[in-house]
Amino acid sequence: MKAIVKREPKAGAELMEVPVPRPKAGEALVRIKAMSICGTDLHIYTWNEWAQSRVKPPLIFGHEMAGEVIELGEGADQVHTGDFVAAETHIVCNRCYLCLTGQKHICTNLAILGVDTQGIFAEYAAIPAENLWVTDPSIPADWASVQEPVGNAVHTALSGDVVGKTVAVFGCGPIGLAAIAVCLACGAGEVYGIDVNPYRLAIARRVGATLTIDAREEDPVRVLGEATGGEGVDVFLEMSGAPSAIAQGFAALRFGGRASMLGLPAGPVPVDITNGIVFKGATVHGISGRKMWDTWYKVSSLLRTRKVDLSPIITHRFPMERFEEGFELMRTGQCGKVILTP
Amino acid sequence: MKAIVKREPKAGAELMEVPVPRPKAGEALVRIKAMSICGTDLHIYTWNEWAQSRVKPPLIFGHEMAGEVIELGEGADQVHTGDFVAAETHIVCNRCYLCLTGQKHICTNLAILGVDTQGIFAEYAAIPAENLWVTDPSIPADWASVQEPVGNAVHTALSGDVVGKTVAVFGCGPIGLAAIAVCLACGAGEVYGIDVNPYRLAIARRVGATLTIDAREEDPVRVLGEATGGEGVDVFLEMSGAPSAIAQGFAALRFGGRASMLGLPAGPVPVDITNGIVFKGATVHGISGRKMWDTWYKVSSLLRTRKVDLSPIITHRFPMERFEEGFELMRTGQCGKVILTP
Amino acid sequence: MKAIVKREPKAGAELMEVPVPRPKAGEALVRIKAMSICGTDLHIYTWNEWAQSRVKPPLIFGHEMAGEVIELGEGADQVHTGDFVAAETHIVCNRCYLCLTGQKHICTNLAILGVDTQGIFAEYAAIPAENLWVTDPSIPADWASVQEPVGNAVHTALSGDVVGKTVAVFGCGPIGLAAIAVCLACGAGEVYGIDVNPYRLAIARRVGATLTIDAREEDPVRVLGEATGGEGVDVFLEMSGAPSAIAQGFAALRFGGRASMLGLPAGPVPVDITNGIVFKGATVHGISGRKMWDTWYKVSSLLRTRKVDLSPIITHRFPMERFEEGFELMRTGQCGKVILTP
Amino acid sequence: MKAIVKREPKAGAELMEVPVPRPKAGEALVRIKAMSICGTDLHIYTWNEWAQSRVKPPLIFGHEMAGEVIELGEGADQVHTGDFVAAETHIVCNRCYLCLTGQKHICTNLAILGVDTQGIFAEYAAIPAENLWVTDPSIPADWASVQEPVGNAVHTALSGDVVGKTVAVFGCGPIGLAAIAVCLACGAGEVYGIDVNPYRLAIARRVGATLTIDAREEDPVRVLGEATGGEGVDVFLEMSGAPSAIAQGFAALRFGGRASMLGLPAGPVPVDITNGIVFKGATVHGISGRKMWDTWYKVSSLLRTRKVDLSPIITHRFPMERFEEGFELMRTGQCGKVILTP
Repeated sequence: MKAIVKREPKAGAELMEVPVPRPKAGEALVRIKAMSICGTDLHIYTWNEWAQSRVKPPLIFGHEMAGEVIELGEGADQVHTGDFVAAETHIVCNRCYLCLTGQKHICTNLAILGVDTQGIFAEYAAIPAENLWVTDPSIPADWASVQEPVGNAVHTALSGDVVGKTVAVFGCGPIGLAAIAVCLACGAGEVYGIDVNPYRLAIARRVGATLTIDAREEDPVRVLGEATGGEGVDVFLEMSGAPSAIAQGFAALRFGGRASMLGLPAGPVPVDITNGIVFKGATVHGISGRKMWDTWYKVSSLLRTRKVDLSPIITHRFPMERFEEGFELMRTGQCGKVILTP
Repeated sequence: MKAIVKREPKAGAELMEVPVPRPKAGEALVRIKAMSICGTDLHIYTWNEWAQSRVKPPLIFGHEMAGEVIELGEGADQVHTGDFVAAETHIVCNRCYLCLTGQKHICTNLAILGVDTQGIFAEYAAIPAENLWVTDPSIPADWASVQEPVGNAVHTALSGDVVGKTVAVFGCGPIGLAAIAVCLACGAGEVYGIDVNPYRLAIARRVGATLTIDAREEDPVRVLGEATGGEGVDVFLEMSGAPSAIAQGFAALRFGGRASMLGLPAGPVPVDITNGIVFKGATVHGISGRKMWDTWYKVSSLLRTRKVDLSPIITHRFPMERFEEGFELMRTGQCGKVILTP
Repeated sequence: MKAIVKREPKAGAELMEVPVPRPKAGEALVRIKAMSICGTDLHIYTWNEWAQSRVKPPLIFGHEMAGEVIELGEGADQVHTGDFVAAETHIVCNRCYLCLTGQKHICTNLAILGVDTQGIFAEYAAIPAENLWVTDPSIPADWASVQEPVGNAVHTALSGDVVGKTVAVFGCGPIGLAAIAVCLACGAGEVYGIDVNPYRLAIARRVGATLTIDAREEDPVRVLGEATGGEGVDVFLEMSGAPSAIAQGFAALRFGGRASMLGLPAGPVPVDITNGIVFKGATVHGISGRKMWDTWYKVSSLLRTRKVDLSPIITHRFPMERFEEGFELMRTGQCGKVILTP
Repeated sequence: MKAIVKREPKAGAELMEVPVPRPKAGEALVRIKAMSICGTDLHIYTWNEWAQSRVKPPLIFGHEMAGEVIELGEGADQVHTGDFVAAETHIVCNRCYLCLTGQKHICTNLAILGVDTQGIFAEYAAIPAENLWVTDPSIPADWASVQEPVGNAVHTALSGDVVGKTVAVFGCGPIGLAAIAVCLACGAGEVYGIDVNPYRLAIARRVGATLTIDAREEDPVRVLGEATGGEGVDVFLEMSGAPSAIAQGFAALRFGGRASMLGLPAGPVPVDITNGIVFKGATVHGISGRKMWDTWYKVSSLLRTRKVDLSPIITHRFPMERFEEGFELMRTGQCGKVILTP
């Protein structure tokens, strides 16, 4: 089969012929119908510092996918042959305190599909059956593949109440864009998108953002203050990892507000704890992965009922042979979500 | 001024000329622009058992309204002259344990506007300024008046999570209809409306209910079971007060589900606590009034952004001279919300 | 090995010699050190209506135990040989919606150890390893065995806040007594024990109940009203299953209060929903089993730190040969928890 | 009357004779029985940067007190003459969004008693009646005065679950010490006290801390890691304001843990958001003041029932004439809570 392989510990990747994997005990073999590229994949592709420290080539990478179950390993009874599935990418131990108390997404012994195990940029993938999410066939394969990052958006946006709230989304990559759509679909009042990338701000507007702010041209703290009558925003979703965005978000947050943080700054970031968190009586949620499996139920419902429309967010589609174009686009930021097809 | 007065302890009411009230300390005088008729008003009109035990004629009744503040009593600094306002009808003591712990809506010393005090079926009304809710002028007066019962719907529907959930609304009066709209606007997956009144079931469909069930013709427990793949509904909103609906709702509830109960049965009702609540690990919320003031913020946002559309729910409009037609309609159930205008 | 067996579909049980079970895949063989008798066991022993409909003799019954793991079936890697363990008695499917959303205790496909499967009234038992709870050896075996019903108490008592609250516990069987102890250990203000059994009320006082009420002699609603300055209790724990207690508990509940219901009435019970739940803005929780595994962590900590002392609650101890004395005692109610030893 | 007055914009204060205040509308005149010194008072006394920017001499400062109501201003019906009272020091507007949604403690228009208004270091004080908390006379005056900072401890410690949890309290000043006591009284498993002051660590042990750590001698992250089997602590209470403590606390926090932050760093602090918050799925609560009035109900109950014992925490007592000794002690840190008496 064809697979996109990180063959050597250096930038780039190769499209290669490799053997179709056999599903081991607990695994299911999936024929891939759609793959989507995550920022993590770009890190592996460009071979950044994080990737160098974590990834061990040769590796088929990629973790967002939709496909059909075609064969089951021993005991893999969570799915059936013929099921249309997507993948939860957090492979968990089911033994640790976190797994035993409803917090599998932050399992102590977490492995990530396509990072710590062979991934899904291929025609077929053997995936732990307990990580497969049976998806309603009415959801298109591209959307089904993107359920995983939409799950990040749902987990972040809905870690607290949004009904009637003002929400500022810092970072309008695909997850930030999905978060805007999710907030609007779940009763938020006004949703503001902030980024430094006009292409993505334009998508934010198409998704329905009340207002977008280009942080290179306007001060988000001032604009958000004006937009909220001086109160600040009820909810701050941090999806950029940028220290400036973090500072602005806490400054723009209303007293009693919530900050849900998904972005990953590269190092420690100065935070005005006194004025941004303590005096404000703010609540801050660190968000990793998706709640297993509450988040997936929500995602599926929002997509199945079309309350969240991914059309404006999925901007490009390439056959996997042209994967380099996809990664290049990701690098430029002139895209929303990029899909590869086998 | 003209007012609709319960003059004597018997059925009916009279349109009379009465003096315009003077706002006392803490009160504001409001020129009424729209009034809406609540089921409670119908009880007072028909002089049912509850009304006989609670209401002391002569009384201007009515409590749902929108209008303009035209004069302020001493110290009534919560609003300003010219403000467009609606009324929270729970008049609270601000002293009891409930008021002191964020639960004013169930104040120990609660009085109800237009029931325990002079009401708003009139051209003018003097209302405690702290009970007035300044409303965005972009909201039509009819809608603004109906914020109070929509608040009941929001309080009930959103006493727990609805995103991606299946919701059964038993009772499709104006509050039940609003609850359907609110659930859909806030991310619910499927929303089922159950009633015995075809007129109201038709409105439920216009509001967007996924499915409506006429409980005289079909067994709601069976239909809801089929609609949810045998699982039962995630959320049961009880807005009928009917013992049969209560039994059906608990029977149709999924394990781990939520029941939020606003309807008022006339006496004790048999409940299958073992199978309907304990084994299901269900959560039941008794709902009274509106959270002061969290609910109002949500209502205003949902109406201002038009995420909730009251057009299909407000079905009739009469000048107050023809109030008897409005009450008669209410009695027949061939209506949604009925508005009176001064 | 010796085992207490329900041999035939009729009242009673027999102490028999049976083969030591072999642990199947996923099971662990446990050498039993202490067994405790649950009300469910008494139902099986007396062969009541529920038992007749559910239990299929021949069956080793019993489900509360502590012991040592001495052998592991294939893949039973949740525990190790030598571990001191107790058992969660809800055997779950790990596949259904409830299992997938952190609600295993109400699994759709629930089986109960010692009811639907061979139990633990024996010298050895083969138990699914994922149902074993590794227990700190500093906890005595009798206490370790009783963790399961203490877990019911913790799950019920702590399904909401108790700090500084007034709590009424209706039903002072072993779980009710444990609930009193748990509430006091977790910051409750005043805890009231209500029962009709003076023996158990005396234990309630030894456990630390602020006040006990014999419901045959005094009206709990009146006494609780007086004790709370007319406000009613903040929390009502229903652990009796008696319709009278349920009515009294809701009548005695403060506005804004919480009712957590564990007791199992035999049929539908009249509930004053209007005055007891809706107008009060009450929250009602149905409680089944123990949260897996949050509750167990709490139970273990409370016992390990001796914040909860089970000494007054465990009143009798018999060698298993004298099991009939234990069941007889249970039937009279002149006991707290009864332990059997192999 | 005697009063401790900040007379001029410089370090120090004076004991002076001033007129007894007259209670204005809404105020009550309180005869002071006990005053306690807060860190804020020390800032005013030493005239630090914050005090210079905020406080306008001449000012009677001080805000923690207990006393008896002896006279009521017009409309001050929240209390009665003869009531034994303490003071909530957050004076709120009752008009803003925060006040209207159950978050008065972070009112947009907040004023602080004894900082922005005349305070209570005096024989008498006129205080807004709505800020007085009627206290059970069984609580000693010293303890009653300290309810306010104990309220900070309760608000911080109980902003999430503590039952069975491991808790690290960074900063063992009076509020940190009270937090240790509160956690233990409310079911926490193990509570660790961290400070750099041996005097205060000794009190922490008397209060019942499982373990204390002198951060000058041992690395708290290592010690807490060892104490929790490598898992980290479930709860991190930040009561020091020290950047090093904040870094250590987040490093020592378990995945899925909670950080509640009361301490006020002087400026922005570097926070490892990626590893300390996001990947951990941590929840962070900024804590200001006390929930009005939920916190006060809890505090009163814990003190009235003696579940929390303030004896080890209140270390010194001076007549107000010797106030300088009290402030000097506070400056050295060789004290717990210091009481002044009129």
